[in-house]
Amino acid sequence: MIEHLPLDQTSLNSARQRVTQALDPAALREAGMRVMELLADHFARVQRSEGNVLNWSDPKACIADARSYVDRASEPGGAVDATPDAIAARIAELTQQILSRGQTLHDPRYVGHQVPPPMPLAGLFDAIGSITNQVMAIYEMGPWASAVEEAMVRTLGERIGYVKDTFAGFITSGGSLANLTALLTARNVAIKGVWREGMHGTKGPPVVVTHAEAHYCVARAVGMLGIGTSNLLKCGLDAQHRMDPVALDELLTQLNREGRPVIAVVAAACSTKYGAFDPLNEIADVCARHRVWLHVDAAHGGAACMSVTHRHLVEGLHRADSVVWDAHKMLHVPALCTFVFYRNREHRFAAFEQDAPYLFDSSAPGIAEFDSGLKTVECTKRAEAFGLWGLWSLFGPRLFADIVDVTFATGRRFFQMLRDAEDFVPLHEPQCNIVVFRHVPRAWESLSPQRVGELQLALRRRVIESGRYYLVPSKVDGIGALRAVITNPLTDEEHLEGLMETLRKEAVNLSS
Amino acid sequence: MIEHLPLDQTSLNSARQRVTQALDPAALREAGMRVMELLADHFARVQRSEGNVLNWSDPKACIADARSYVDRASEPGGAVDATPDAIAARIAELTQQILSRGQTLHDPRYVGHQVPPPMPLAGLFDAIGSITNQVMAIYEMGPWASAVEEAMVRTLGERIGYVKDTFAGFITSGGSLANLTALLTARNVAIKGVWREGMHGTKGPPVVVTHAEAHYCVARAVGMLGIGTSNLLKCGLDAQHRMDPVALDELLTQLNREGRPVIAVVAAACSTKYGAFDPLNEIADVCARHRVWLHVDAAHGGAACMSVTHRHLVEGLHRADSVVWDAHKMLHVPALCTFVFYRNREHRFAAFEQDAPYLFDSSAPGIAEFDSGLKTVECTKRAEAFGLWGLWSLFGPRLFADIVDVTFATGRRFFQMLRDAEDFVPLHEPQCNIVVFRHVPRAWESLSPQRVGELQLALRRRVIESGRYYLVPSKVDGIGALRAVITNPLTDEEHLEGLMETLRKEAVNLSS
Repeated sequence: MIEHLPLDQTSLNSARQRVTQALDPAALREAGMRVMELLADHFARVQRSEGNVLNWSDPKACIADARSYVDRASEPGGAVDATPDAIAARIAELTQQILSRGQTLHDPRYVGHQVPPPMPLAGLFDAIGSITNQVMAIYEMGPWASAVEEAMVRTLGERIGYVKDTFAGFITSGGSLANLTALLTARNVAIKGVWREGMHGTKGPPVVVTHAEAHYCVARAVGMLGIGTSNLLKCGLDAQHRMDPVALDELLTQLNREGRPVIAVVAAACSTKYGAFDPLNEIADVCARHRVWLHVDAAHGGAACMSVTHRHLVEGLHRADSVVWDAHKMLHVPALCTFVFYRNREHRFAAFEQDAPYLFDSSAPGIAEFDSGLKTVECTKRAEAFGLWGLWSLFGPRLFADIVDVTFATGRRFFQMLRDAEDFVPLHEPQCNIVVFRHVPRAWESLSPQRVGELQLALRRRVIESGRYYLVPSKVDGIGALRAVITNPLTDEEHLEGLMETLRKEAVNLSS
Repeated sequence: MIEHLPLDQTSLNSARQRVTQALDPAALREAGMRVMELLADHFARVQRSEGNVLNWSDPKACIADARSYVDRASEPGGAVDATPDAIAARIAELTQQILSRGQTLHDPRYVGHQVPPPMPLAGLFDAIGSITNQVMAIYEMGPWASAVEEAMVRTLGERIGYVKDTFAGFITSGGSLANLTALLTARNVAIKGVWREGMHGTKGPPVVVTHAEAHYCVARAVGMLGIGTSNLLKCGLDAQHRMDPVALDELLTQLNREGRPVIAVVAAACSTKYGAFDPLNEIADVCARHRVWLHVDAAHGGAACMSVTHRHLVEGLHRADSVVWDAHKMLHVPALCTFVFYRNREHRFAAFEQDAPYLFDSSAPGIAEFDSGLKTVECTKRAEAFGLWGLWSLFGPRLFADIVDVTFATGRRFFQMLRDAEDFVPLHEPQCNIVVFRHVPRAWESLSPQRVGELQLALRRRVIESGRYYLVPSKVDGIGALRAVITNPLTDEEHLEGLMETLRKEAVNLSS
């Protein structure tokens, strides 16, 4: 007999009673109402820029604060009274803490990372999934969640230009995991037997060719998959920071001569650093000629498929063997919701080679076609499509076109403002809403480039810690620079003028 | 000049106006109230088992239904009127669709997968994160989200028994990704230079040793990391399906003799199939003797750390080099929220070897310590700790002990009920809330074991598609079986009797 000292029945009954109280729907009703009111008030304030755009706080102090709530409740008598009223009051207090200390992406002064201020209504659909825990792994675990995901895969895939019923896809937890999974499939397709035998017997060794300024997760994927980052080769770029098809052709020809198998070419639509869109049709031509898998990281720029005005940026995307597109970037749903597409439907199960008898049921073999777990790293997976499905079902595709049109146009406008100012230097001509630049007041013109770069980073840190604007750092030719991603459609010229003024003032403070 | 045909100012102004309307906080307020009411009513009904426990639906029809909402809104005039009233009404309709078609884990007749009916209040905290899009990657992107995560890492790590300030950890999107990341770290630590050079030059080849009935994601990790699944070796189990330390010792000795490097030993706390807890102290002794990395997949069983009664099951867990623990399993928060721990703090950055200049800011080098993206596959990551932080801050640790105590005791009780019935055969003595069994009515006793196994799966399918109970299939020695995970604290003896009665009735229907 296994050691087993169960609780006595009385203790067990008390435990069950306490859990039942915590599950009381009345507490959810009351607390939920309070939370929704607090959220609506919060958004109204944030949209008017009434607080800080970044609630900066020293990490150690911040962790201690977060921990203090947990520790207090861990003490005898520290738990809340289990009545709906008391629970709702305590939740309101904790909610205010989260909101007052958290990030405020919806402030139009936020021009930071490629993380949008998502539509709060999309978050509401996501919340329905979270609160009821709609998940999937196999179809039967979440028929509706699985169906919504498949419906959105087909909807976006057709927008890319893939031919109905010939492609496949799935949603996964973020762009890095998505790029990893797509490159895993490319590896498995390119190298026969690698799943079982591993990479240690491969000849060449095999390589991956990438846009030279791809997101860091491409190099990570190569490191993770056992290919080795020394076998990740960067393809040359043109003057607009786009992958050069001629350079690609030469590189692939040379690799062929050297007998080095190419697992995939990774193009960008757009690149993280400058928002540059690779010439996909020309690249697809080169890849077709060399019979190499073309993967396109369209995490940010996939959204251009939604806009008549900007569609030309992703011309040729439908020719990619695999595509990654983050709905939680420019489709403005909350993180994480990343789509992976395979042009050829036959590759949909090529990432993994296994099954689990307790999951995949031989009594209903046809159903496995709809089991998400066979395609994704995740076993249990959130219903990540709910936000996008809900938003699209409310507003239709025009909302997404509007978001792209407004933010890309504002990015363009910012570029013009920087170009027209004597003390700002745009470092590229933006193709979308990512703008890299430097502030160089007259007093700094005589400094070394290195020093000017250091000052950009110091300047940025002062600005973000002040809570007045949020932008991010970059490097151009090894020298520090500033980077703005105009992802909030509420951000207009006035805010951008304010940003430039703030940078000017802080630069003076920094110099003095 | 880059091709650029911007929208005229009038079109742009209209687009901006439409987006601004969709962002109206008043719409969130009104829709949010409606959704909370619908959710509270839903939980009240589900807890009383008023509907189906599984809303089964044919995949193709279900996908078509999901798609129809999107297609309708894509037609001219299909979008909702952008007033708070109209938006709230449409959202209420879509919410009812999600709730009536979705999974109902909170129905006490749900004894299916290792996916709990989470505390709806935890979901509410998660929702705050979703609706405002609290994310992280670097500390400055989400100081509060990062701090809450670190506070919970420390809280749970100390519960495991790790020594304060000597261990490290992070949260990631699910158990599969967590096991992958921990084994990636083990691979990088075991094989010098593998990140850069890849697996193709390694000698041995290197192996991973695993609990023979580990979750399928362990084999997947080995396939993904370029190690090759033929180099995943299964360690023998004892009569209670636990990893046998003597067999492990022999296997490691033999591998040493053969000159095959061992990347890691993967133990289970508990195993997916039977819920068997490996003898961690003995296994840690063997691993220490052989100087091999011990990884413990405690996705399900980590929660035993919270219970005085069941703590003995995870005795020795603090000796593991890495541990995976899903809060979205037995801590009853919504998916996904998985903790990864490293006993030795020095391993916290060993999974990856790179940086991205636009992320990791040289002007504040000390801050990188708190950047989540250096430790996780995800770059942008949800504030996955909010649910657990909120729940703990409300109810303290006793709630989690209660959940474990109640569900483990009910699992035990179910085993006794099966053992006492003439027509049921429990296939192991459960150590927790996972129970594997068969229904064998007199009429089936003369059938071949294979046929009895097929009937278990057919029986289960009839039961789940009827919506009356939800349990899952398994296989024991290649023969079909039934598996119940009692994860809902509201599930009691009466429900389990009902399950047995339902199986009996459907078996009669199946036979006739």
